[in-house]
Amino acid sequence: MDIDRHRFRRSASRITVLAHALGVTALSLLLVWLLHYREGINLDSDNASRVFNVHPFLMFFGFIFFAGEAAMAYKTVQAERKVQKFTHMLLNLIALVLGIVGIHAAFKYHNMINLKHMFSLHSWIGMGTLCFFILQWLFGFAMFMFPRSSNSSTRERGLLWHVCAGRALLYMAICAAETGLMEKASTLKLMDSRESHLVNFTGLTILLFGITVDLSIALARYI
Amino acid sequence: MDIDRHRFRRSASRITVLAHALGVTALSLLLVWLLHYREGINLDSDNASRVFNVHPFLMFFGFIFFAGEAAMAYKTVQAERKVQKFTHMLLNLIALVLGIVGIHAAFKYHNMINLKHMFSLHSWIGMGTLCFFILQWLFGFAMFMFPRSSNSSTRERGLLWHVCAGRALLYMAICAAETGLMEKASTLKLMDSRESHLVNFTGLTILLFGITVDLSIALARYI
Repeated sequence: MDIDRHRFRRSASRITVLAHALGVTALSLLLVWLLHYREGINLDSDNASRVFNVHPFLMFFGFIFFAGEAAMAYKTVQAERKVQKFTHMLLNLIALVLGIVGIHAAFKYHNMINLKHMFSLHSWIGMGTLCFFILQWLFGFAMFMFPRSSNSSTRERGLLWHVCAGRALLYMAICAAETGLMEKASTLKLMDSRESHLVNFTGLTILLFGITVDLSIALARYI
Repeated sequence: MDIDRHRFRRSASRITVLAHALGVTALSLLLVWLLHYREGINLDSDNASRVFNVHPFLMFFGFIFFAGEAAMAYKTVQAERKVQKFTHMLLNLIALVLGIVGIHAAFKYHNMINLKHMFSLHSWIGMGTLCFFILQWLFGFAMFMFPRSSNSSTRERGLLWHVCAGRALLYMAICAAETGLMEKASTLKLMDSRESHLVNFTGLTILLFGITVDLSIALARYI
């Protein structure tokens, strides 16, 4: 293609910066919501709402934000490939562990208020995402952390599928977050309040974070 | 990259077939829900629920399904590039018009039951998607339907941004659909019923449709 690739690549790296900024903005909005409008965050509290609040906090900051940063690590970490790969693996491992704690918080909350588990669309998408994420992490660890165990052609085909699966996972995680915010706003009957606007802006920022991370990976890989 | 590209491309075209199948499955599940569990679909009815049901039907079948097929038209339409381009434009125009009628149905329903417009996260994401979609269509029409009006390098850079914006729009539209189903399931208090499972399966199928369309475009363009 006859295109000024250098100029396009520069625009692409601006998208990565935008992704970081959107991630931090979403986190700030989420904290304002949970700490100012809701009753704070505490997994060991007797107050069920505080236990619940650990869930959105860890699912975004722990799971989505870390996994998003892991996805962009090959662009953002200025080091040799081995170090980038290790950072990518480690950030995803942190995301996985914090994601499990975040889901534990939701289950603990359900038990405290005697609510059935796993009936909503949000819970189905969310649990599907976590299970698929664990498989993807194990597959990635086995295939790319011990590269001598498979031949180079298998590994390269594996890499393409790994990237595709990673992008699909990001898609799923963002949908889980959006449906989660929607479910909570409906349950709390926020309607047209200031709190509802805050939740909506948080949701939009998380969505834009997902889109910019997705584009950042696409542009880095294919341009 | 030393990779068996032919084999990978074959897998990629299987993803396009899967995308069609998922789209049709999602449509079937949606129709079972709206016609069997809900009261049917009719924009001119005095029954507010029937008017409302036009909204999910047209937003998925009219908007998302047509726009998804439009996105894949360069792979699925076996004709010269001009015909593919025209099909792509036309399918997106149909999506746009049906999307506007679908949003009109939601507004009409709100008026019938005296509900405020545009307060939920779903409505914000959905309206944002439609407005951005209109801009993207106008931009695409002006830039690619009259190619002589801009120079080739501008057009090629424009094409890359057009593809990126299209994929971002698909992301947004899928999130709009998921939050919409979540909002309706919460409002109807479906909890752990058979209807709730049907809505969840519909949501999952729509999500998988989005992911497979996204992968299909990514693989077609970059492999």
